[in-house]
Amino acid sequence: MRGSMKMADYHGMWKELNIDLKTHDLLCDALPPLYEGIYLDQGNRPETMDYFNMVVAEVHGARIKELMDFKAKGNKVVGAFCIYVPEELVLAAGSQLVGLCAGSEFWVPPGEKVLPRNTCPLVKAGVGARISRTCPYFQSVDLIVGENTCDGKKKAWEILAEEAPMYVMDIPNVKSRSGMALWKSEVKSLSEKLEKLTGKTITSSNLKEAIEKVNAKRIALQKLNDLRKGDVVPISGKDALLVSEIAFYDDVDRFVEKVQVLTDECVERVQKGETPFNPGAKRIMVTGSPLVLPNWKLHHLVESTGNPVVVEENCTGTRYYEQTVDGSPSDLGGLMDNLASRYIENIHCACFTPNDGRLDDIVRLAKEYRVDGIIDYSLSFCTTYLTEGTKVRDRLKQEGIPVLSLETGYESGDEGQLKTRIEAFIETLE
Amino acid sequence: MRGSMKMADYHGMWKELNIDLKTHDLLCDALPPLYEGIYLDQGNRPETMDYFNMVVAEVHGARIKELMDFKAKGNKVVGAFCIYVPEELVLAAGSQLVGLCAGSEFWVPPGEKVLPRNTCPLVKAGVGARISRTCPYFQSVDLIVGENTCDGKKKAWEILAEEAPMYVMDIPNVKSRSGMALWKSEVKSLSEKLEKLTGKTITSSNLKEAIEKVNAKRIALQKLNDLRKGDVVPISGKDALLVSEIAFYDDVDRFVEKVQVLTDECVERVQKGETPFNPGAKRIMVTGSPLVLPNWKLHHLVESTGNPVVVEENCTGTRYYEQTVDGSPSDLGGLMDNLASRYIENIHCACFTPNDGRLDDIVRLAKEYRVDGIIDYSLSFCTTYLTEGTKVRDRLKQEGIPVLSLETGYESGDEGQLKTRIEAFIETLE
Repeated sequence: MRGSMKMADYHGMWKELNIDLKTHDLLCDALPPLYEGIYLDQGNRPETMDYFNMVVAEVHGARIKELMDFKAKGNKVVGAFCIYVPEELVLAAGSQLVGLCAGSEFWVPPGEKVLPRNTCPLVKAGVGARISRTCPYFQSVDLIVGENTCDGKKKAWEILAEEAPMYVMDIPNVKSRSGMALWKSEVKSLSEKLEKLTGKTITSSNLKEAIEKVNAKRIALQKLNDLRKGDVVPISGKDALLVSEIAFYDDVDRFVEKVQVLTDECVERVQKGETPFNPGAKRIMVTGSPLVLPNWKLHHLVESTGNPVVVEENCTGTRYYEQTVDGSPSDLGGLMDNLASRYIENIHCACFTPNDGRLDDIVRLAKEYRVDGIIDYSLSFCTTYLTEGTKVRDRLKQEGIPVLSLETGYESGDEGQLKTRIEAFIETLE
Repeated sequence: MRGSMKMADYHGMWKELNIDLKTHDLLCDALPPLYEGIYLDQGNRPETMDYFNMVVAEVHGARIKELMDFKAKGNKVVGAFCIYVPEELVLAAGSQLVGLCAGSEFWVPPGEKVLPRNTCPLVKAGVGARISRTCPYFQSVDLIVGENTCDGKKKAWEILAEEAPMYVMDIPNVKSRSGMALWKSEVKSLSEKLEKLTGKTITSSNLKEAIEKVNAKRIALQKLNDLRKGDVVPISGKDALLVSEIAFYDDVDRFVEKVQVLTDECVERVQKGETPFNPGAKRIMVTGSPLVLPNWKLHHLVESTGNPVVVEENCTGTRYYEQTVDGSPSDLGGLMDNLASRYIENIHCACFTPNDGRLDDIVRLAKEYRVDGIIDYSLSFCTTYLTEGTKVRDRLKQEGIPVLSLETGYESGDEGQLKTRIEAFIETLE
């Protein structure tokens, strides 16, 4: 299956958004061949991935046009980088939440103008995308909600705040009683900030509706990803990752519908035994740092060896979709409490200490998805995941599950060496 | 002046402490020539630095013997890495607080066995000193109090906790109302932990006494360092740094007495115009990451050019001694509140966001100490200080104060290159 990557002409809109058109054109020219090589050249894909091909093709085009139309009606658009920013509050306040550009090497050099080279590429790319004016999401958001999940982000927001409308949620280091109290007050402060931004009051009614909407998105992703547990893996890891990545950008209701269509097709594919992989392929879990659009490097390297990634224990994987919010309370206080709890209690980012819940999750998911081996992936200079790697390796050794630790950025220069290490690792799996 | 670096034989005591004697001997052999080259070869030092020479010579010997004697009477010794751990509480509970080894390249390779190479040398050396069993402080403490001031430390404590008796204080990212509430509850929790460890209750009486004792230490350091503000700089930056570093290890009352003796001598030296520096030498401020014993690299490089470091805006400088605790309340609650406030309100570590108070401090100190130029020093991979460097440079540009940013670790390999950069910077100063 080959999709079209041709986009309509949006230069007028981009100019209005104060995009650096010349530099942005370089990016627009680079994405289609990248996507073609990594995605469209895959064999035996689900047909209904076509929608997601279109989303990628139009990620700086049609989707931005939608957001501009939404804004033209007096609505606000909010941007964020992290799954701890509660989308439910943004929706309840009548806004939309979008992810911000942070996944490409393209934005790393401008980020390095103001950030240390020894910063993770995600943070450098995020800041670089804004200061180079080559990300239409950054250019169109009314508010950016950052969060203190790591030193790199925490200190980068201070610099980004001089360029863009920033609001920062504090995240406690420890899920203690006072840490939880701090987090609850942060959730409350964000809701007040959003009310001020939009002029709309968050009520039990609109929050309940928003909770249902976002729960539906997470449940749709759960159902799709559940199909990766079986013998017949109906969808590549690359495609499943792409769907999760797009969850951060797309209109929620449409996204849910399209994921359901894809899931229906995948159910049929399982019944027919249709899979992109050969029998006996090794089942790989990826755990660690987030993989944000268009960071497909690791999945592409793994699946180029003919073996599927079957699950991602990360912020663009299980941590995003496994937990839902209990929307049963009828009062705002009860809903806010459940919302705050959902975001912190059982989602185990390496920013927390201790973080043994993540080790338990990895072991549980390894069984559920019947993985043969695990790749513990850290973005370069991502101190929290790199350091937690020692505990991950110790625990997996105890459990008898093979693990390969990799640290890499967005650059392509180390792909040959990484592929050799991945192949060598997979050869050792029984 | 030449002091003796010969130490008595403590092998029996070290053996009891389960020190790796063979490896530790290498360290003991390496320190005297290092100290001689950096410290004893200086010209025109204050005579009463002799006490501090002795402390360095006996830092793994006589001081450890004292601590062991103190422990033999049923007392406890507590170790820490950071100025946010309140020494007053430790003293009030009848214990002593000591710094832990983290300042030498010697301990970096063992640290790298369990920590990512991309970790700051201070954290790697701290963990490495413990797991290599070559630091008698680590071997003799009854409790180690860590703190969540950066990702590197926060995650390293999880690994260290498997090797040693760890307790971790959480530090908020933001000095907000809920951040302050969290910090106050952490101070309370530490006091309870210390009471449990020692069996001694912290009362208004013993806390008041401890506050006075630690205030006396900070005031003694203030008075000494005040003398560096004048035209005649009576003490080298290296010596002043050493005194501050030793503040973390020495018996408090004795240390205060010896600093007072040194200060008296320095007052006389100023009157007589005695200084290690030539007229017209450029006055340098060092700001940034902490410089812990025996990390004398930067000061040695700067002062080898004949120009004095006159002030350190860091955790082994002004942040350690500028603030005292208001010990006037008669009730425990009032004292605890003042203690908690002292530690967080006006001490501006880059772990906080925002941290504009540090920029104000740098500018204020530059005026008070009449500096000609500032070196913004970051330990390698120290994300918080490296990133805050952008704001430091921006602010100093506004203020018209020249700044040189340097990132380096404990290794000696880059000293030639650093010296060239420092010399070039100083040549530009008017």
